[in-house]
Amino acid sequence: MERLLRTCHIRNQLARECMAECLGVYVLILFGCGSVAQVTTTEDKKGQYLSINLGFALGVTFGVFVSRGVSGAHLNPAVSLSLCALGRHPWMKLPFYVFFQVLGAFLAAATVGLQYYDAILTYSRGELTATGATATAGIFATYPADYLSVWGGVVDQVIGTAALLLCVLALADQRNSSVPDALQPVLVGAAVLVIGISMGSNSGYALNPARDFGPRLFTYIAGWGVDVFKAGGGWWWVPIVAPCVGALLGTLIYELMIEVHHPLPPSELQTSSQDATEDKMRLELEPDCEKC
Amino acid sequence: MERLLRTCHIRNQLARECMAECLGVYVLILFGCGSVAQVTTTEDKKGQYLSINLGFALGVTFGVFVSRGVSGAHLNPAVSLSLCALGRHPWMKLPFYVFFQVLGAFLAAATVGLQYYDAILTYSRGELTATGATATAGIFATYPADYLSVWGGVVDQVIGTAALLLCVLALADQRNSSVPDALQPVLVGAAVLVIGISMGSNSGYALNPARDFGPRLFTYIAGWGVDVFKAGGGWWWVPIVAPCVGALLGTLIYELMIEVHHPLPPSELQTSSQDATEDKMRLELEPDCEKC
Amino acid sequence: MERLLRTCHIRNQLARECMAECLGVYVLILFGCGSVAQVTTTEDKKGQYLSINLGFALGVTFGVFVSRGVSGAHLNPAVSLSLCALGRHPWMKLPFYVFFQVLGAFLAAATVGLQYYDAILTYSRGELTATGATATAGIFATYPADYLSVWGGVVDQVIGTAALLLCVLALADQRNSSVPDALQPVLVGAAVLVIGISMGSNSGYALNPARDFGPRLFTYIAGWGVDVFKAGGGWWWVPIVAPCVGALLGTLIYELMIEVHHPLPPSELQTSSQDATEDKMRLELEPDCEKC
Amino acid sequence: MERLLRTCHIRNQLARECMAECLGVYVLILFGCGSVAQVTTTEDKKGQYLSINLGFALGVTFGVFVSRGVSGAHLNPAVSLSLCALGRHPWMKLPFYVFFQVLGAFLAAATVGLQYYDAILTYSRGELTATGATATAGIFATYPADYLSVWGGVVDQVIGTAALLLCVLALADQRNSSVPDALQPVLVGAAVLVIGISMGSNSGYALNPARDFGPRLFTYIAGWGVDVFKAGGGWWWVPIVAPCVGALLGTLIYELMIEVHHPLPPSELQTSSQDATEDKMRLELEPDCEKC
Repeated sequence: MERLLRTCHIRNQLARECMAECLGVYVLILFGCGSVAQVTTTEDKKGQYLSINLGFALGVTFGVFVSRGVSGAHLNPAVSLSLCALGRHPWMKLPFYVFFQVLGAFLAAATVGLQYYDAILTYSRGELTATGATATAGIFATYPADYLSVWGGVVDQVIGTAALLLCVLALADQRNSSVPDALQPVLVGAAVLVIGISMGSNSGYALNPARDFGPRLFTYIAGWGVDVFKAGGGWWWVPIVAPCVGALLGTLIYELMIEVHHPLPPSELQTSSQDATEDKMRLELEPDCEKC
Repeated sequence: MERLLRTCHIRNQLARECMAECLGVYVLILFGCGSVAQVTTTEDKKGQYLSINLGFALGVTFGVFVSRGVSGAHLNPAVSLSLCALGRHPWMKLPFYVFFQVLGAFLAAATVGLQYYDAILTYSRGELTATGATATAGIFATYPADYLSVWGGVVDQVIGTAALLLCVLALADQRNSSVPDALQPVLVGAAVLVIGISMGSNSGYALNPARDFGPRLFTYIAGWGVDVFKAGGGWWWVPIVAPCVGALLGTLIYELMIEVHHPLPPSELQTSSQDATEDKMRLELEPDCEKC
Repeated sequence: MERLLRTCHIRNQLARECMAECLGVYVLILFGCGSVAQVTTTEDKKGQYLSINLGFALGVTFGVFVSRGVSGAHLNPAVSLSLCALGRHPWMKLPFYVFFQVLGAFLAAATVGLQYYDAILTYSRGELTATGATATAGIFATYPADYLSVWGGVVDQVIGTAALLLCVLALADQRNSSVPDALQPVLVGAAVLVIGISMGSNSGYALNPARDFGPRLFTYIAGWGVDVFKAGGGWWWVPIVAPCVGALLGTLIYELMIEVHHPLPPSELQTSSQDATEDKMRLELEPDCEKC
Repeated sequence: MERLLRTCHIRNQLARECMAECLGVYVLILFGCGSVAQVTTTEDKKGQYLSINLGFALGVTFGVFVSRGVSGAHLNPAVSLSLCALGRHPWMKLPFYVFFQVLGAFLAAATVGLQYYDAILTYSRGELTATGATATAGIFATYPADYLSVWGGVVDQVIGTAALLLCVLALADQRNSSVPDALQPVLVGAAVLVIGISMGSNSGYALNPARDFGPRLFTYIAGWGVDVFKAGGGWWWVPIVAPCVGALLGTLIYELMIEVHHPLPPSELQTSSQDATEDKMRLELEPDCEKC
């Protein structure tokens, strides 16, 4: 079998990265939206809000494990955008990454829909709706709480995504936290966990345009209809735009308050010796891969 | 005492592996089914669905810790099957592994039955049943939710086990995630946790023929009777067949989307130097053992 | 963009440390008080007491990750005080650290207030109070349980902060626990988690003058009024004074029972060789940074 | 201050170990019984059974962190007994270890009693009882569930402690699981967590004679009276005797099924080279200390 598989070998780096991003987001949404489906269709009997928080957190962790050695595991258009802005990722790749992130989320939502087909039909008595007592569209995409104004929702998503980027950049900054590669997926998941615990109730902490738009598109096609775009006062654009703004804001705060002030190497000589040390350390810990 | 124990030393590698698989699955089921027993017999007062998810997750973690240095800690016939299909495990050993995995699960179920003997009799008022308000067969084996069709159950188990294999293979793929040996049992446990959180409500996420069939056999013998095979419309074969299909599917997806595309070493020379580096790294981190 | 950011580079070590402490406490309070806001305004529907415990625990973890490479991540005036008393931190820096810790907490409370603006107004029906059925001041600062005497509250905070310092000093004591740098933020967070689980119900486990006073000041200014200082029988000074006493007590206990008894190096020679070994080890694990 | 503390330096190894065991068990019981006090006195509002599980688990983790570099962190007479039986700990030290373990538990129970003084009096309306609706003796020591027979309780504690030793020995067996020193306290805590989740409801998973007898003695003295020994049909001796039996049983199972079968070094030569490799590895990971 191994030899058979070898014949499918693809050498193109961008194609590999796109597949990895797609599968990474797929895993993230499969576990994340699956946990919402479980809590919703069992009416909190087999899970609570905390299990949804854990579902998305561990979804991110395993999404990163699946893809980071290949694509760096952005798994989020807002993260890709920030890394491009910082000059750590080529702008040219951005549209490819974003497309395959959304595609992965769409396919995962379809898988969750298939896996919970019986459960969703039983719970909703066959009516697929985005609002009302047995609404099930919230299994897939995010919708704001009743009390939330649109402006409040934008602020919520900007703060949430800024907090995410603060954590992610701190974890990746080897001159600050020095986290080994193997722990980063776990700690990025922990960051998503704490954001879900502390910033989840206003509008479901999308934090990620792909996470929200892919599944929303699935519900639009799969029978929930145009309501998924109309509900919450036309909420759908907020989890696309606000996370991008928030990611850039969080990046700016971390860079301005911490990263740019790390001591500069006084000369070219020191730079090269420092790089050599860093390379040596990486080698000793594990095979190198692109940092997320 | 140490000298006395030494006289029991067994050199046969397969015998050692079978004992390790047996003890590993024993630990997994002891903690997993124990947590279901605790939640069921206390009527959610000393645990909730999340504690069952944690029970199986940490059961897997410690099952792996107990056995991986000896047998590679498959602990699951579906995992053994996939590794054989990938050429990473000899087909010859498969029936031995499977038998001792089922045996370990059977013995653990008997231990849980013994430990919760008073509790189960009190809770069920002495009637051991597989269905009804005080059914206790669900402590040991899995049963589908009322709404679930057989086909839906097959889909559920195929998706769940495919997700498990995706995670396990990503964790073991040193060219992707580079997880140190010591963390792998914890992260495999985390994969089982998130699957329980996101895919547990349809049919109890068996994911593992041994985990389901061993305890079911125990209940059949120990007084629950033939109902344990009849309940759920003859459900018992689904957690045996579907996980095997799902494991192969998950393996195929991970191989085709990620692993076969890792850059190939251009020459024999590089291969050997790469191996040397990998060996060096393993040596530096911890004593080597077969990857699960 | 990277070049633009470089122009903001600050070389002053104390200024960098103050910014890091400010941002670290900001992250801690953003996640901590955010989780209280989520539980309070959703009336336990999207979180429970355990999620508040997790919010502060992971808040500490990421607060430490954000700042430890720069400032050593005290994030707590009581911790700074203890380290000064132990001679591991210069007394001269103490007031600067304390000021910026309180500032970070104040700014984070303001951010939580902004993010939960709609939710707080809806929950409290527009009345910002420190007592009563829809009190919301407890989102930001701590208040004692009804049954608690002032003296009981002082004892509670002294014991809680002493327990925190016991754990933190044990984690930092390389001759005892040998925890790698990268795990320390996670384990300090776990210490805060278990203190919240075991010592949280009497008075909300402030353990940290900055964590309590900064947000209390925010509520005073932002519309809750002078009641935030009057409530609980003038409780506000307890979470400032008692943690400082508790931190010194915990430090004394750990030093007297464990750390001072570690074998002394018999000669200067051994000391230097030991230091060399330690330096080598640190180098091999990760780039060095000030221990918290 | 550091110089002042140095004058208290004690060189006697056994005295240092006894202090470390005492402080380690103190931390374990402080967090463990504290979490029961919080759940009991708030009537499940600020914690649930899971938080008690976490309290004891993290109590063990930090108890181990506090003491393992000095005493090896047994923290449990049954563990000390097993290690003596295995020849890994001198029998001569056993009574000292046991005495200071019980002393630590007693002092911690007194601290919890002090910290929750107001809360316990309010909850129990001033009546300190071991049975009845507002019983509070269960905060400190374990009592069996109503349905449990004495024999069932013995079986429960034997199985539970055997499971604990299985996990602890697997974690410490470098030829099997190769867990780095720094992770062992966390994983031993996780073992206690899963035992609490899967074997906690019958009789409160004492698993440890010191954990149970020290606090029981405190309640006897502090006002709960002789009922703490009479309740549960004279239950008090079970958590002393059964864990010792269970620990020896678990040790035997792990040794006979796994550890004695590890490949033997064929010659003295190989032994020494293997030791050298192991030493090298330990050195590279962290400073060595006695394994628990």
